[in-house]
Amino acid sequence: MFQKLFNKMTPGFVEAEKGDTAGSPSATLAARMLTAPSALMQLSLDEAKVVVEYMRPQIIAEGTMFIREGEAKDIGFMVLVLDGEVTVENIVVSRVSPITLTVLGPGSMHGELGLIDGQPRSASCTASTKLRCAILTREAMEELLKDHPKIGAKLMMAIAMRIGDRLRDNTEKLKKYVQLTKTMQQEIDRLMPG
Amino acid sequence: MFQKLFNKMTPGFVEAEKGDTAGSPSATLAARMLTAPSALMQLSLDEAKVVVEYMRPQIIAEGTMFIREGEAKDIGFMVLVLDGEVTVENIVVSRVSPITLTVLGPGSMHGELGLIDGQPRSASCTASTKLRCAILTREAMEELLKDHPKIGAKLMMAIAMRIGDRLRDNTEKLKKYVQLTKTMQQEIDRLMPG
Repeated sequence: MFQKLFNKMTPGFVEAEKGDTAGSPSATLAARMLTAPSALMQLSLDEAKVVVEYMRPQIIAEGTMFIREGEAKDIGFMVLVLDGEVTVENIVVSRVSPITLTVLGPGSMHGELGLIDGQPRSASCTASTKLRCAILTREAMEELLKDHPKIGAKLMMAIAMRIGDRLRDNTEKLKKYVQLTKTMQQEIDRLMPG
Repeated sequence: MFQKLFNKMTPGFVEAEKGDTAGSPSATLAARMLTAPSALMQLSLDEAKVVVEYMRPQIIAEGTMFIREGEAKDIGFMVLVLDGEVTVENIVVSRVSPITLTVLGPGSMHGELGLIDGQPRSASCTASTKLRCAILTREAMEELLKDHPKIGAKLMMAIAMRIGDRLRDNTEKLKKYVQLTKTMQQEIDRLMPG
């Protein structure tokens, strides 16, 4: 199943955990992580295990940028981190180095936005350590929605919630920046020769 | 159906369009608007009409703040605007007046984030004109997901996409603010008596 659904390998990914199946420890871990977000309509562990059957285990080497900001092709997948850390970065024009938005560990999802809307990637994700992951491709997601619409709907809700979490975080940051620029403007006005 | 699903009236709302049913012009308009976002798995017009059967028509008077930032109760509904304009605002600490984030017209959704995650409202929404709307309550959404899981999954995806749009917008704004504060800091450094 995994093999069938993930023919096109994303560069930098190395295949591993060949023996990993729906009943393996990794699969159970992935299922448990999918039930973690406190969505209003939560996936049960059994339902999450069905989702995991549509996912593919993957090891990502340390230092690999597996999602690249602005990338418009190869966006049809989402990564659920089982073990390891991911650095999420944004490129800001006229800055030499990108700004680190956050570092996320086990249970974090990456690429779920592009999976849903097919738009270019909004941030870059790099493996800061070796990662053990579960990958959901768009094809697999569509198959899941066809085979198990009820579970698919709950997964969609969980994904919407994760995107919503990011939106809420971002909104708070934006408010702080509005405040900061106001303070800085006052400072500039004060320093300006009258 | 509408009556059954929306017993608790939100203050400021006045009931109207008593004759409005799934076959009415408003219902068709609502259905057409639900199909508008270019989601990867789009609701067909027939599917959107099923969704609309779970919604409730509503007139909101000009000047009514129908979603209030920080509100933690009464968040179990989402508003789809059929006609009119909505001003979306954020309260920023130590600012006297809130900052207007955007003004949105027909086809816009409001409150979909709280509908999904049950968290306090992240912004305030005020009717800048008289609004004709379709409202989806959490109870109705759960009923829809139970009765028509496949359509429910597509609706969830459409909602996730809208939240994603807002996230992408916000990310762009955030990048501009990072850039702006950097420029302002340089200006302050230049003005500071050395």
